[in-house]
Amino acid sequence: MARNAARAADGIDEARLWQRLMAMARFGARADGGVDRQALSAEDVAARRQLIAWAEARGFACAVDPIGNLFVRRAGREPDLAPVLTGSHLDSQPTGGKFDGVYGVLAGFEVLEALEDLGLSTRRSVEAVAWTNEEGSRFQPGAMGSAAFAGRMDLAALRVGADRAGVRLGDALDATLAATPTAARRALGFPVAAYVESHIEQGPLLEADGKVIGAVTGIQGSRWFAVEVTGEAAHAGTTPLKIRKDALKAATAMVSALESLMADPSDVVRFTVGRFEVAPNSPNTVPDRVFFTIDFRHPDAAVLQRLGDQVEATCRAAARGCAVRVTQTFDAPPVDFAPAIVGLVSAAAARLGLPHRDIFSGAFHDAKFLAEVAPTGMVFVPCARGISHNPAESATASDLAAGARVLAEVVAELAAQ
Amino acid sequence: MARNAARAADGIDEARLWQRLMAMARFGARADGGVDRQALSAEDVAARRQLIAWAEARGFACAVDPIGNLFVRRAGREPDLAPVLTGSHLDSQPTGGKFDGVYGVLAGFEVLEALEDLGLSTRRSVEAVAWTNEEGSRFQPGAMGSAAFAGRMDLAALRVGADRAGVRLGDALDATLAATPTAARRALGFPVAAYVESHIEQGPLLEADGKVIGAVTGIQGSRWFAVEVTGEAAHAGTTPLKIRKDALKAATAMVSALESLMADPSDVVRFTVGRFEVAPNSPNTVPDRVFFTIDFRHPDAAVLQRLGDQVEATCRAAARGCAVRVTQTFDAPPVDFAPAIVGLVSAAAARLGLPHRDIFSGAFHDAKFLAEVAPTGMVFVPCARGISHNPAESATASDLAAGARVLAEVVAELAAQ
Repeated sequence: MARNAARAADGIDEARLWQRLMAMARFGARADGGVDRQALSAEDVAARRQLIAWAEARGFACAVDPIGNLFVRRAGREPDLAPVLTGSHLDSQPTGGKFDGVYGVLAGFEVLEALEDLGLSTRRSVEAVAWTNEEGSRFQPGAMGSAAFAGRMDLAALRVGADRAGVRLGDALDATLAATPTAARRALGFPVAAYVESHIEQGPLLEADGKVIGAVTGIQGSRWFAVEVTGEAAHAGTTPLKIRKDALKAATAMVSALESLMADPSDVVRFTVGRFEVAPNSPNTVPDRVFFTIDFRHPDAAVLQRLGDQVEATCRAAARGCAVRVTQTFDAPPVDFAPAIVGLVSAAAARLGLPHRDIFSGAFHDAKFLAEVAPTGMVFVPCARGISHNPAESATASDLAAGARVLAEVVAELAAQ
Repeated sequence: MARNAARAADGIDEARLWQRLMAMARFGARADGGVDRQALSAEDVAARRQLIAWAEARGFACAVDPIGNLFVRRAGREPDLAPVLTGSHLDSQPTGGKFDGVYGVLAGFEVLEALEDLGLSTRRSVEAVAWTNEEGSRFQPGAMGSAAFAGRMDLAALRVGADRAGVRLGDALDATLAATPTAARRALGFPVAAYVESHIEQGPLLEADGKVIGAVTGIQGSRWFAVEVTGEAAHAGTTPLKIRKDALKAATAMVSALESLMADPSDVVRFTVGRFEVAPNSPNTVPDRVFFTIDFRHPDAAVLQRLGDQVEATCRAAARGCAVRVTQTFDAPPVDFAPAIVGLVSAAAARLGLPHRDIFSGAFHDAKFLAEVAPTGMVFVPCARGISHNPAESATASDLAAGARVLAEVVAELAAQ
């Protein structure tokens, strides 16, 4: 344990962090109390300009890379060493809340300020980062800033994508960069010593367990499938059931069979059928087409493979004479975070007297891509009833500050290494 | 058996009937070979004017009542007696075929022509009728012409209904009546000696059985329900399954439980879930709302009551913590046709050497309402694979003519009584 690591948490200012969160929530504020601050929008630009203004007021250098990732740097004693990064994203869902993403950016910035307020120097530089477009609401795919940084998405390919209004990402990005002229330009991707992201849990486990800190051990893997069931439309009054090819009854039988396949007494499997669409969708016509999606997640790659590989056969076995097409639309293996960083998070929480537990992330985060290029970890704090991607998203100033204190200690320790 | 009853079938002209069907199919012809001739549309007006032109060419009197039901009359020897009516409807589904409804009208008209061609007088007058708006596609509800005729729907209430473009039924009706100025005006509802409707089966039973004629014994009863399931939206990646209130999984469990409830080895029960709508319908969000419909039909009122009364409890038992609201939206008891007319249909088919069977109607027809005011029956002929309400609707000239021959004999017999 480096000498200053035990003290960095002392510089976290709960009121300042809360005020900044509320200030950011004004950019894209919705009438229902939520936030609509989609990537590279005017609201996103305003949030970026605010962060830069706060940074410049403290004398921190700002830089942007070609995908718009925004870095605020507090230089270390050995500025040529790879920095420690901490952050998340400023963009929100169209029906988003005040904490998803922006909390991680402002907690990282709060760490910089805490170190500055305490006069604590670090060996490595520490940078707070706002990754571009984590949500993927306006431009797809999500997490493109961190993915491009990690070399997993191609900038030129991303730039030609367009939003629903036909605006190209490249044009929105150029306008965003032009609106933050004081930030230096920086190349895409550079060596990173470690990455730590703080985030609201977006799930109910910490709250249910009475914990304030989650030491995130990794991000569970996901396999998504699309299922198309094709039967035969028929008159509901005249057609005997035995000769029907009823796409809806076949699809509901598939969902039941998949529930049996995915049954898990330990309640770790996540199995969701979120979209389910019926045609012709008329009360007195036997449906001839159903489309539904499967979102299947698990922390264990072997379970993901074993159960996921049975999805198609399970659907076929319940097809009842209908045609079935099963397509895997997404396949992301589980990510394991660096055990050393998970340990630092637990240890810091313990030192600070904060109830904590290990936890797997059920949701995706920018940390997924950073984990491919640097030792990576995350710090979760509770959010009320696990509700997120929702204007009702709620977290307490106390828990948010607790997460920032843990983050400060972990970052300071990593910056000393 | 009246002397001329055995001969009326001889006047049916298969080619003429087919040509008229094809001529009518031009009014509202779709590029895919189907017909879109919705009630009180320009296409419906054109079909009505065509029927009147054919009638006037033969010297038959035409009349319309205030709901637009169109009658073509061949007077009997005792014109003050209640007439025998035969017909169906000229309107179609927006994606309709060439035979549903219009066949019954033109078969009825063919009977008038057959009697005329043969010089056969009848004691009672015989009238071919086209009931207004059986389909209920443009204006709801369906079968409003026959229902208003039978005194089961109120004309003034129907007139204020509007289509999706905001056109009031009263205005469309007035325009339709104005476009057929040569038809005499007639009051709504009058004594009817008997009603016989010929129609394609719209189901597969006659074809599967190798029968040409169905002697329709009645129309099965129907109970329709709407089910609203309300759970709680949640993040698909983070929310443990045990604490979810998943409206989709609850709804699919309800459909499965209803299938068990409705299981019928004799395959007489008709149980259909035709509409099924999910919100927010996003792949990675646990659905919080499902709306689905139940269309349940059976010829036996006791079975309709026993199983229908268990629908709500069956849904509640599968609710899995979600809220459930079950609403009965339609309740039509079974209709039994007059045994004497069913017997006349069977006897005529037997005399004509046509393979025939008794059959229950799975679909609604105008005969449902006429059965409340007069002895009523129906004659079914096969349609290919039971497909109807579909541009692919198909029937053979030979089967259609066979149905008209049976109809001619039955109508002539009834008109002799």
